[in-house]
Amino acid sequence: MSITPSLSRRLDGLQSSAIRDLLKLTERPEVIGLAGGLPDEQLMPRDRIALAAEAALADRSRLQYTQSAGWGPLREVLATRESVRLRRAVPIEEVFVTHGSQQALSLLGEVLLDPGALVVVEDPAYVGALQVFRAAGARIVAVPLDAEGMRTDALSELLERGERPAVVHTVSNFHNPRGVTMSPGRRRELAYLADRYGFWVIEDDPYGELWFDNPSPEPVAIYSPNVIRLSSASKILAPSLRAGWMVAPNAVCRGVELLKQGADLCGSALTQQITAELLADTDWLGAHVDKIRRIYGERAGALVGAIRERFGDRVVSSEAGGGMFVWAEFADGTDTAELLPRAVDHGVAYVPGSAFAVSTDYRTAMRLCFTTSEAPVLREAVDRLACAIDA
Amino acid sequence: MSITPSLSRRLDGLQSSAIRDLLKLTERPEVIGLAGGLPDEQLMPRDRIALAAEAALADRSRLQYTQSAGWGPLREVLATRESVRLRRAVPIEEVFVTHGSQQALSLLGEVLLDPGALVVVEDPAYVGALQVFRAAGARIVAVPLDAEGMRTDALSELLERGERPAVVHTVSNFHNPRGVTMSPGRRRELAYLADRYGFWVIEDDPYGELWFDNPSPEPVAIYSPNVIRLSSASKILAPSLRAGWMVAPNAVCRGVELLKQGADLCGSALTQQITAELLADTDWLGAHVDKIRRIYGERAGALVGAIRERFGDRVVSSEAGGGMFVWAEFADGTDTAELLPRAVDHGVAYVPGSAFAVSTDYRTAMRLCFTTSEAPVLREAVDRLACAIDA
Repeated sequence: MSITPSLSRRLDGLQSSAIRDLLKLTERPEVIGLAGGLPDEQLMPRDRIALAAEAALADRSRLQYTQSAGWGPLREVLATRESVRLRRAVPIEEVFVTHGSQQALSLLGEVLLDPGALVVVEDPAYVGALQVFRAAGARIVAVPLDAEGMRTDALSELLERGERPAVVHTVSNFHNPRGVTMSPGRRRELAYLADRYGFWVIEDDPYGELWFDNPSPEPVAIYSPNVIRLSSASKILAPSLRAGWMVAPNAVCRGVELLKQGADLCGSALTQQITAELLADTDWLGAHVDKIRRIYGERAGALVGAIRERFGDRVVSSEAGGGMFVWAEFADGTDTAELLPRAVDHGVAYVPGSAFAVSTDYRTAMRLCFTTSEAPVLREAVDRLACAIDA
Repeated sequence: MSITPSLSRRLDGLQSSAIRDLLKLTERPEVIGLAGGLPDEQLMPRDRIALAAEAALADRSRLQYTQSAGWGPLREVLATRESVRLRRAVPIEEVFVTHGSQQALSLLGEVLLDPGALVVVEDPAYVGALQVFRAAGARIVAVPLDAEGMRTDALSELLERGERPAVVHTVSNFHNPRGVTMSPGRRRELAYLADRYGFWVIEDDPYGELWFDNPSPEPVAIYSPNVIRLSSASKILAPSLRAGWMVAPNAVCRGVELLKQGADLCGSALTQQITAELLADTDWLGAHVDKIRRIYGERAGALVGAIRERFGDRVVSSEAGGGMFVWAEFADGTDTAELLPRAVDHGVAYVPGSAFAVSTDYRTAMRLCFTTSEAPVLREAVDRLACAIDA
């Protein structure tokens, strides 16, 4: 009478008590929390969502079960958006709505991976992707990131050595946690390798619209049919709509559809109509996303500026051209996991780089989330961090 | 570049093109659809949901990510409800909110089952459960149902023969598709066997509140700590709230929690607050559920009455004391899968018994859903069925 032995093993792999304990600490109100990964709820379009909810509820069928692939009109809006982004007519059959893009990742793990299959991830990695690939029993190999995103030369070497991944996962824009964006050249190279060696690329893109000064490059998916694109309304509208989506070949969508039926039957026609209405109102949406860009951009600038001013050459920080995170590495060997309890004592929290490590330990790195604090608070956070180091 | 070979095999197992094709036919407006399994959207409390949505949106944190185990206040409301139902104080740690109860079933499949584990289901079976257990790679053995629910004598024989299930799944009240409710004696027997042989019972109970004349018996879970109870707001409030829940020992809930993080991170604080508000308003809820009971009860009575009047001894129908379905079997050997195209031509659709078959073929049975048609329409449906048979 217990959970299964194999699950116990898998759960051991999933548990990350260090981060869990940390997140509890950061709930203390006196601690400036740069550890979380949440969008700012003050910027979520509550009034617009309330109006859309009212409109959705005018039709009782929004209360009923809906299609497993998603409420039709939302898929149409997404097909229109993605057609622009991908510069081709994306048919609705290639658009699949999921319960946040994490569900797309999780169902794709089942559709594309047999146990023991090779998955290439970026190092440092998005932890939610690692969780999915580990649960699928995949063999995980990491390729490092640099300022231009995934080191496709390292991927190419892997492939030349005879490694044959089933899937290569990338957070192409404003990487979580590394902050970087894959350059157009690397995108073309990744797509070329996918076509040549026959693997799927999962282009996980929740942050692509949150650019500050320069729009994100064209998606990897523009260069190859072997790319599955994931995105979400969580970062531009609100996480509680739980609206993620996938653009993928029809065969992949149909596989995901059958698994979705077993997983949870379908999503919510109510929250999907709200999402559709907001995404379809392109004038409103443009202004809304511009506002998020401006505010997040100011915050990112304040954080990176304060880090450079305070630490100079002692810390190397990512550029923060968009997204939600800055990745900062101590050049002097400071161990961020060791520093953390002192940092929390001084009233600031972050996630140590080791939490995202696959092959490299990232012992001297940390992820800082700038979305939920205003500029003066972020500057204060950096001051507190400096005090913690000197303590 | 394809979906995995093992998935192809699993998908083959999941596909049921006969039912799929059928559901397409029943979308024709001239066909009276008794094939679906949907609650009546006219009875869903739209205005109350709209008010609750407005109230929920007053707090911006309802737009944010929430806990994987569910929004705290919803878990508290559920703990209170289940404490009454289970006649013990259910702690919040034993309540877990899922994206419909199908997700609870699916995550439990991962938590409780290793590939090859034995799962006992009822025959005929709830198709969504079969889908989950097949996807988990379980070995499935069926135990027949009779008018008192699961034949625990047959289960007992299995166990005496040395079979050791990890899980026994039952739809204890108003079975889908079989319509029957497990008697109190059988419940005690099932619980006794679970304790003696050490297996989990999953008591899948989405219909328990939809009784017409006599309240459902006390849950199986009252008789043993080895019972995991599942239920849902879909049948009493609205499916698009996607609010299901599980009451289970803390260790099971924590296993499900880690898997939920990988599956979709969390549910929607927005729809969960709406659900909590409606479930907590017990006076309103009592009157609302009474109304559904009265209307569904009238419809069920009309359907069963018309079947008996039209077919006499030729058809044996379940009693329809609650829930959403009547199970009717032709005593004269009529093959319901063969009859179906003629029935659709005559403007009535149902699901042939074979769609729910595990060990027995149920060739002469059919499932009829009475929730979405008014009494005269149900009588007309039975007339059309009689014409189809005589055609």
